[in-house]
Amino acid sequence: MASKASDSILVVGSMGFDTITSPSGHVDNLLGGSANYFSLPASLYAPVSVVGVVGEDYGPQHFKVLQDHGVDTEGVQVQKGETFRWAGSYVADLNEAVTLKTELNVFRNFDPKLSEAHRQASFVFLANIDPILQMRVLDQIESADFVGLDTMNYWIDSKLPDLKKVLARVDAFLVNETEALKMTGESNIVVATKKLAGMGPKIIVVKRGEYGFFMFSENRFFVLPAVPVENVVDPTGAGDSFAGGFMGHLCQAGKGINYRTLQDACIQGSIVASFCVQDFGIRALAKVNLAAVERRMVEYMQVVSLKGTP
Amino acid sequence: MASKASDSILVVGSMGFDTITSPSGHVDNLLGGSANYFSLPASLYAPVSVVGVVGEDYGPQHFKVLQDHGVDTEGVQVQKGETFRWAGSYVADLNEAVTLKTELNVFRNFDPKLSEAHRQASFVFLANIDPILQMRVLDQIESADFVGLDTMNYWIDSKLPDLKKVLARVDAFLVNETEALKMTGESNIVVATKKLAGMGPKIIVVKRGEYGFFMFSENRFFVLPAVPVENVVDPTGAGDSFAGGFMGHLCQAGKGINYRTLQDACIQGSIVASFCVQDFGIRALAKVNLAAVERRMVEYMQVVSLKGTP
Repeated sequence: MASKASDSILVVGSMGFDTITSPSGHVDNLLGGSANYFSLPASLYAPVSVVGVVGEDYGPQHFKVLQDHGVDTEGVQVQKGETFRWAGSYVADLNEAVTLKTELNVFRNFDPKLSEAHRQASFVFLANIDPILQMRVLDQIESADFVGLDTMNYWIDSKLPDLKKVLARVDAFLVNETEALKMTGESNIVVATKKLAGMGPKIIVVKRGEYGFFMFSENRFFVLPAVPVENVVDPTGAGDSFAGGFMGHLCQAGKGINYRTLQDACIQGSIVASFCVQDFGIRALAKVNLAAVERRMVEYMQVVSLKGTP
Repeated sequence: MASKASDSILVVGSMGFDTITSPSGHVDNLLGGSANYFSLPASLYAPVSVVGVVGEDYGPQHFKVLQDHGVDTEGVQVQKGETFRWAGSYVADLNEAVTLKTELNVFRNFDPKLSEAHRQASFVFLANIDPILQMRVLDQIESADFVGLDTMNYWIDSKLPDLKKVLARVDAFLVNETEALKMTGESNIVVATKKLAGMGPKIIVVKRGEYGFFMFSENRFFVLPAVPVENVVDPTGAGDSFAGGFMGHLCQAGKGINYRTLQDACIQGSIVASFCVQDFGIRALAKVNLAAVERRMVEYMQVVSLKGTP
């Protein structure tokens, strides 16, 4: 765990309730949202503060999930009305959700206001929300060591100029493969990552779901597959949890970020994402600890490493 | 190069002419077929003999392509009529060909007959042809050290019982990911490879196109991404060339096949496949040499390896 007060992560993202159908079953109104999926694994590595908005139906038992992990929820505004809700199905394709319903509710009027303490955060993750709000958060940050950003198709389609503006100001862009291709108009991921790097971020991390990740930084590629998982129950939040492991590891490394730290951060992201998909919603993430992460990393390194000849 | 006469590879597969359209352009009646795509890279590592059938339109200049690489083409029957022809397009999706035309021609009545010398082959690769013909070849082999097998959707749909019979008699099954899933009725590749291993082969190598490979053997997984390639021109034959590099490396290793040899074989397959896709048809494969393979392997190992901390 990082010990300096200054080495902490601030995340701004959605908090809500998800209704999910997958080949493994159906769950109603399970705790979700990018900020929850991100914070649980990130909190294994470093202190985390959340900035978000919820409605009056978001009770103490919901806050408790993050608080039990030592996550600071002081930055979560509680507003009149209902919390953000999403419903999706993976019945046709485990790799891509079909969105059945999105209710923005209190999220519609979200205006992130950072406290004095939160403005001092050294690591900032702008999870998938309106790029205008991401920018508004960034404008309130005093001087961060490292800023990561995620987005989604919806913002690429509707607010590309705003997205590009905020992208130019971040260190790392974490993005799904289909979104990386869409955003650049390319069909080749090698070309696409180079184009994205040309938009500003020194580090591009393309998330490829069951195929792992594709990192481009310092004019080098680092590419590995996902952890082989036999029992994929629900892929919701896998990308956000990857970001949590990634940013968590970097924050733990503090000022010592180099190419190797970034490689390890991608691996930590892959490991926590592999837990995420093994149960519905945040259930698996709420239970996982660093010892389990460590054990799975040893297994994973065997899968991607050459065996010493006997 | 292997020096023992017994350490050689026999491949049975298609030889023909491909008409290919991709985002990079269009080519008519280019030399192709699984046996050609396999033999060119395999011949970099070991002596290769081809068993196949062509028509009278398959001239000395076509045989010369393999012969220039030292490949023995004595086992290629020349029959009255036209050679096998295939036409496909990758305009919609570089990862999957749309077949526009298949003309079996002389391939329709192909009955592989092995010479005395060919029956002694120590390494045998049964490329994608009718599983009944694959079995007929296997029945003529005296005692091979190692047999590899490929197939395709068409045979999974039409001759699954025959395919399973031949599968039970081979050491390694090299198969596309979509075909592995289809053949097992599974949606998870971890589960699918275990099921396929249960059908007989000690080694399952799932080819994932731009996402690399997924090997299962000795109850362990070895998984790596493909070589990042910026200029993918034509993916035709990439899987066959992978098999060529894979079998070539194993033959070169001779009797010393262990898990590490299989890992290296997968990597050699990935490297030669990355050359294959960089030009139409067999053009790139006809030019590549071991020095170029070696150089690209050094680059590739950087992409998939952790960097030593400075």
